Amino acid sequence: MTTRASIVGASGFSGGELIRLLLAHPHIQIAQVTSRTLACHPVHRAHPNLRAATDLIFENPDDLTPCDAIFLCTPHGNSQRDIDRYQSLARHVVDLSADFRLRDPEAYREWYGQSHLRPDLLESAAYGLPETGRARLREARLISGVGCNATAMILAMLPLARAGLIRRAIADLKVGSSQAGAEPSDASHHPLRAHATRTYSTGGHRHLAEVAQELGNFPLDATMTSIDLVRGVLCTAHVEPTEPLDERRVRALFREAYQREPFVRIVAERSGLHRLPDPKAVVGSNYADVGFAIDPRSGRIILLCAIDNLVKGAAGSAIQSLNVALGFDETAGLRAPGIFPV
Amino acid sequence: MTTRASIVGASGFSGGELIRLLLAHPHIQIAQVTSRTLACHPVHRAHPNLRAATDLIFENPDDLTPCDAIFLCTPHGNSQRDIDRYQSLARHVVDLSADFRLRDPEAYREWYGQSHLRPDLLESAAYGLPETGRARLREARLISGVGCNATAMILAMLPLARAGLIRRAIADLKVGSSQAGAEPSDASHHPLRAHATRTYSTGGHRHLAEVAQELGNFPLDATMTSIDLVRGVLCTAHVEPTEPLDERRVRALFREAYQREPFVRIVAERSGLHRLPDPKAVVGSNYADVGFAIDPRSGRIILLCAIDNLVKGAAGSAIQSLNVALGFDETAGLRAPGIFPV
Amino acid sequence: MTTRASIVGASGFSGGELIRLLLAHPHIQIAQVTSRTLACHPVHRAHPNLRAATDLIFENPDDLTPCDAIFLCTPHGNSQRDIDRYQSLARHVVDLSADFRLRDPEAYREWYGQSHLRPDLLESAAYGLPETGRARLREARLISGVGCNATAMILAMLPLARAGLIRRAIADLKVGSSQAGAEPSDASHHPLRAHATRTYSTGGHRHLAEVAQELGNFPLDATMTSIDLVRGVLCTAHVEPTEPLDERRVRALFREAYQREPFVRIVAERSGLHRLPDPKAVVGSNYADVGFAIDPRSGRIILLCAIDNLVKGAAGSAIQSLNVALGFDETAGLRAPGIFPV
Amino acid sequence: MTTRASIVGASGFSGGELIRLLLAHPHIQIAQVTSRTLACHPVHRAHPNLRAATDLIFENPDDLTPCDAIFLCTPHGNSQRDIDRYQSLARHVVDLSADFRLRDPEAYREWYGQSHLRPDLLESAAYGLPETGRARLREARLISGVGCNATAMILAMLPLARAGLIRRAIADLKVGSSQAGAEPSDASHHPLRAHATRTYSTGGHRHLAEVAQELGNFPLDATMTSIDLVRGVLCTAHVEPTEPLDERRVRALFREAYQREPFVRIVAERSGLHRLPDPKAVVGSNYADVGFAIDPRSGRIILLCAIDNLVKGAAGSAIQSLNVALGFDETAGLRAPGIFPV
Repeated sequence: MTTRASIVGASGFSGGELIRLLLAHPHIQIAQVTSRTLACHPVHRAHPNLRAATDLIFENPDDLTPCDAIFLCTPHGNSQRDIDRYQSLARHVVDLSADFRLRDPEAYREWYGQSHLRPDLLESAAYGLPETGRARLREARLISGVGCNATAMILAMLPLARAGLIRRAIADLKVGSSQAGAEPSDASHHPLRAHATRTYSTGGHRHLAEVAQELGNFPLDATMTSIDLVRGVLCTAHVEPTEPLDERRVRALFREAYQREPFVRIVAERSGLHRLPDPKAVVGSNYADVGFAIDPRSGRIILLCAIDNLVKGAAGSAIQSLNVALGFDETAGLRAPGIFPV
Repeated sequence: MTTRASIVGASGFSGGELIRLLLAHPHIQIAQVTSRTLACHPVHRAHPNLRAATDLIFENPDDLTPCDAIFLCTPHGNSQRDIDRYQSLARHVVDLSADFRLRDPEAYREWYGQSHLRPDLLESAAYGLPETGRARLREARLISGVGCNATAMILAMLPLARAGLIRRAIADLKVGSSQAGAEPSDASHHPLRAHATRTYSTGGHRHLAEVAQELGNFPLDATMTSIDLVRGVLCTAHVEPTEPLDERRVRALFREAYQREPFVRIVAERSGLHRLPDPKAVVGSNYADVGFAIDPRSGRIILLCAIDNLVKGAAGSAIQSLNVALGFDETAGLRAPGIFPV
Repeated sequence: MTTRASIVGASGFSGGELIRLLLAHPHIQIAQVTSRTLACHPVHRAHPNLRAATDLIFENPDDLTPCDAIFLCTPHGNSQRDIDRYQSLARHVVDLSADFRLRDPEAYREWYGQSHLRPDLLESAAYGLPETGRARLREARLISGVGCNATAMILAMLPLARAGLIRRAIADLKVGSSQAGAEPSDASHHPLRAHATRTYSTGGHRHLAEVAQELGNFPLDATMTSIDLVRGVLCTAHVEPTEPLDERRVRALFREAYQREPFVRIVAERSGLHRLPDPKAVVGSNYADVGFAIDPRSGRIILLCAIDNLVKGAAGSAIQSLNVALGFDETAGLRAPGIFPV
Repeated sequence: MTTRASIVGASGFSGGELIRLLLAHPHIQIAQVTSRTLACHPVHRAHPNLRAATDLIFENPDDLTPCDAIFLCTPHGNSQRDIDRYQSLARHVVDLSADFRLRDPEAYREWYGQSHLRPDLLESAAYGLPETGRARLREARLISGVGCNATAMILAMLPLARAGLIRRAIADLKVGSSQAGAEPSDASHHPLRAHATRTYSTGGHRHLAEVAQELGNFPLDATMTSIDLVRGVLCTAHVEPTEPLDERRVRALFREAYQREPFVRIVAERSGLHRLPDPKAVVGSNYADVGFAIDPRSGRIILLCAIDNLVKGAAGSAIQSLNVALGFDETAGLRAPGIFPV
């Protein structure tokens, strides 16, 4: 039986990726896509790649009707305000905004600077990253999307973090412009953004809360730098281990952590051009490439993770999580590899 | 029953796209992939996007064994030399090089500056663009791949050319760097190639022969300019029509030409950001976006076509053509829309 | 004696280039730079390259005081409205907007769709391209800046146009994103604009009026395509000559036209990587690279011109023109070659 | 009196920048430029930006004649082999290769894996970074160019390092493609290099030796990541201080270190788009933009430095150092600000 899913706020980049991926999903059919500003326009008005692939028309979000699952691509704050309505319309709600990522209302207040409107729901929301929360997702009806930077940090560090081997880590993230969404600004103006290497968040705050929730607490700093890229995040985590680690041990930890993960690939080669994770290798795909290197002088471990921020860092993980919640094959609709080179 | 296909010269960009697309093909299974320089390496050595998506290993081309279909991604001249061997190994051969694109041996000699080694086979080879040669492809055992620039020119001008409405045309093509293949050179050196707008073929010669073969003869000039793009070709054909044409008539001609074509989309909008074909909207897909505009002052018709040179301009059209030859649904394995934005 | 010049609307890209170039000008000193939105901020707030190079502060445009020359970088329509004020403040006014580019009020009405507010001044304004109007500039007190696309078209075609050898021309322009100014929009949003090849003006209207004014009338069409470039315009003019022309003759015409021009370089090589004009070779400089090729099949002449739209297409030509008007060495402050590679 | 300088190996990127900068130098005149492969070609064959700016012709390096100063842009190992010849031809030799960067022959052996051919000269060679070695440069006849990555690290950390406040640092460098030189390779092939975010040196070895020499020893790790940029290096140094530092103190240390440095600009703003160093703001210029941020949670200090690797990281520092050695104004020929935006 086919699941009918609707997408609210479908004119943005994550919305476009949800539509693209769900069109190829064997068990999910798109019911409605909404956009207040583009209501009555075909989806290819915002997503020119989807022309001919679908004849869906953006509808007014007020006209949302009952369905099986709703994906929310709404601005921060909206979903916690309107969650009752969405939950009354659909058994499963997947919220790609940041509203339900943190389970702890205190953490939410601390990192977002305001009280959560629906702290009662936080505990029941499942963080939408199967690699850390598959069990919770199986029972979940409210699924939170992931932060793309947090995802890259989590997947880079998970093998060592789980083993309790990280004494301290500094994550240096390189991020593309699509991360900031579809709204133009000075910061995204092409003449200014192209060829920029612009450090914009030296403390990396909110992302860190997600990492702590999923990996446990260890001293972690993060800094974000926008580079000339549309899609992609590369997390370079510089890790001081609690004890000396050699390549063999680190590789074993990565294998153990990820050998059953369908979307995590270990990239740590000794030769060739593509030795370490590079977001260029995952464009358009749900893969997360993880890898590592060891600095023999200092013993520092460099942990890397490259993802497509709009797929594994947003729409792809959301669908993967819903697949888990609905009991589908977790990889349904998500198996296409990336486009290379592009 | 599954068709078993092998790819010779699979380490290049077209080879990588053939592998990516065939892995998702419902009726074709990859038998062997060959590369002399990368023999014994996994395919992700050259195509990092395909890691985990396949465990294929590059084999030595000398070890090629019989199968149902062979795709040749070999340098110019190789396939005409070795065609007997390939045809003895497989019932269908799809040659992505330029060797069998022209049916007329005289045209080959004129445009390529040498005699064809196998003029006896030229007449039986089918040009692998279903939009112009579907009937021939149905019976074909030797299929030629297309030139990506020729494809963009052909699909831009086909509706008016078929109607005999082109008095003269000048095609100004903007092309990405992946067109030149996987071999490094001064011209492709990133510091020199990035941000370049480099006109390199003011006469556009060889491509024109394919256009003339598929569309018939009319005065056509072409100029190629490399722009800072990895994938994509945009053909802007400036056409002097044989009689005044208004938008309604041109649109009708486009609809008539393409309404049954599964991969050609007409893009000629009056509003929005995405009004005309842009290769950005077809990245990774087999779609060709075609469109038009009319210059009211002069009556000039601007015909546009945007394709991904590695898909519709190479691997995608090759598979689409083989689908036709094998009696499969023509769109099998090729329905995925492009990745946007990237 | 030093000329004191002020720049109105100095926070935009042309304003930034005027400041950069005038800081190195031997005979001109910057008096004031104004910006309503950035008043009281140092210029490096908008132009981070100029940090430490100057301690100028943006002033409110209402506080403009008398000086010798004023450069106007104001939106279309402002300078024709306020021209009396500016002329009362300074003997020379150089208006980089489009307000005073056309001498004929009828042409203005036709191309801009409205009546000019000060038709009385149009005849006395000098078009700020010394290559076509040096004599007029010597006497000018009101100088109009140039359109960057028009400049590229004019300089590409001038040698043949002057000789009356153009029967018809189609100019296909490839343009960078800085041309559209400093104001963000959907069209300039980095995720959408990066890697775009977006045809946006198939008729190329307003630019054509400038070309006709400077080169005389011949059938000319133009189409603009945005490519992934910040700075630069490449004009590819496809020309049908009135009689057959060989390379020797074309080269002679180019030499004759440009041998005394300090900023026009003829680029038409038979070997090497840099055979034809490419905006990559003029980044940051006032040079215009012009070149040509002849299509032996059809006799079509391909005329090319590459400029930096913010320098030769805006600030550089403005300063060059003021140099002429003030009797300075025409190259003063403008001799720096481009930065390559970048 | 004018100094006559020659450039050996002038066809590469550093050579091109030396020519560009020296053409505008008030006290230095270029005597000869050599290139074995391009001998007899004009310099614009390799450096198209310099067309018309000079009529210099590449000469065979064997034809080098005596002059006042020689810049060597030769591959690693050449200058230590041929240094006697060069020193016999000119009083001052500036070697932009890595041959004479380290004063300690043991350090050279350790980091470069071989014995230095002329350890006798190492002690007398001056490291060509006036910000750390101005005094030595005044007497120097053999000046070593700098490593661009080392320069970015040194200038980012110098204020805190001098004060002994760095307990440990991890430098994460983002680098452009021009750093690897003018020779094409797989790694620099545009389709592969464009949009890549490729970590290639997780240990950052050789660069570290220069940093240790100039700043003294403290635990320092470095990792290099190639990003999609032609020019530019951004060093992000994540520093654990020996004691808690607040912004005021760090700012004071930066001011103290750099207030008299003509080419170091402190960029640490609280508002605006351009708050921290970005290589985009220094393109084509000799400026080094340095800045800092403090992570209030952990006390980590983020130290940043952005340079143009071909100018401050190569040709610019070389000329600045020679200016010091020759007693010229240190900024002669180097004052032009960067081109922005580009």
